[in-house]
Amino acid sequence: MRLTQWTDYSLRVLMYCAACEHRDLPVTITEIADSHGISRSHLTKIVQQLGAKGLLQTTRGRGGGIRLCKPAAEINVGELVRQTETDFAMVECFDAQTNQCSLSPQCGLKGVLHQATNSYLAVLDGVTLADLIARPDVQAKGAMVEMPVSRKRDDG
Amino acid sequence: MRLTQWTDYSLRVLMYCAACEHRDLPVTITEIADSHGISRSHLTKIVQQLGAKGLLQTTRGRGGGIRLCKPAAEINVGELVRQTETDFAMVECFDAQTNQCSLSPQCGLKGVLHQATNSYLAVLDGVTLADLIARPDVQAKGAMVEMPVSRKRDDG
Repeated sequence: MRLTQWTDYSLRVLMYCAACEHRDLPVTITEIADSHGISRSHLTKIVQQLGAKGLLQTTRGRGGGIRLCKPAAEINVGELVRQTETDFAMVECFDAQTNQCSLSPQCGLKGVLHQATNSYLAVLDGVTLADLIARPDVQAKGAMVEMPVSRKRDDG
Repeated sequence: MRLTQWTDYSLRVLMYCAACEHRDLPVTITEIADSHGISRSHLTKIVQQLGAKGLLQTTRGRGGGIRLCKPAAEINVGELVRQTETDFAMVECFDAQTNQCSLSPQCGLKGVLHQATNSYLAVLDGVTLADLIARPDVQAKGAMVEMPVSRKRDDG
């Protein structure tokens, strides 16, 4: 059971921006690509989609980059994962068009898996992007790592 | 977010056997393969693994087939899914060897996703195989479908 790579990378882009929320210069795609070892073109698509969803704003040209559209404390993780994770069909029978399972009429599996998925998402509903980057246990140990502030200025 | 096909098919095999628990003749792999449109060789591997885990017993030859090793009411769905679903690495950073995420040291995502996954499995922990095939809402409407009892006698 895994979240898609799209969700994984979307979370990382937003968390990176959240961690740099109070920095003067906006974050660049190149900076995130270098930091995570993810291809720049793949990240560009993700940033575009997060922009279309009203989560990121992009400014072009020199000094441009990406920023969160609203404070990290107002971005709910459950809501975000529901948007990026388009397939919650846990097993074949969730899709009526492809379902070939002969047990379906008397089967309780679908209902139970729906309930389990809701329970999964309910945990994420209780968390914001700000919570994810503010781990008190790590901060308490002084292990907080500084976000990079230097960057190339060649992309937005 | 999906369970693997292996888990999906494992659940179907066990549910089919559970639904036929009180039948005189054991279930055959061919019967399940025909019923679900799944390849017989793929099902054979699943049956072998479920046998190795002590969930199914196989008898060979004429009149042979597969049966649950214990009553369906004693087979916990959460325990089963933990056994068949080997990958609960929700995102890249769950695997320390492949993790390239620079946010990891100050990131709370892993902990939150662990908590969500535990919440998912906790729902399944409250359900047995017998619960899955005894949907009171369906039975109440008289829509209960009979399990097939006829079958070829050429496999075990």
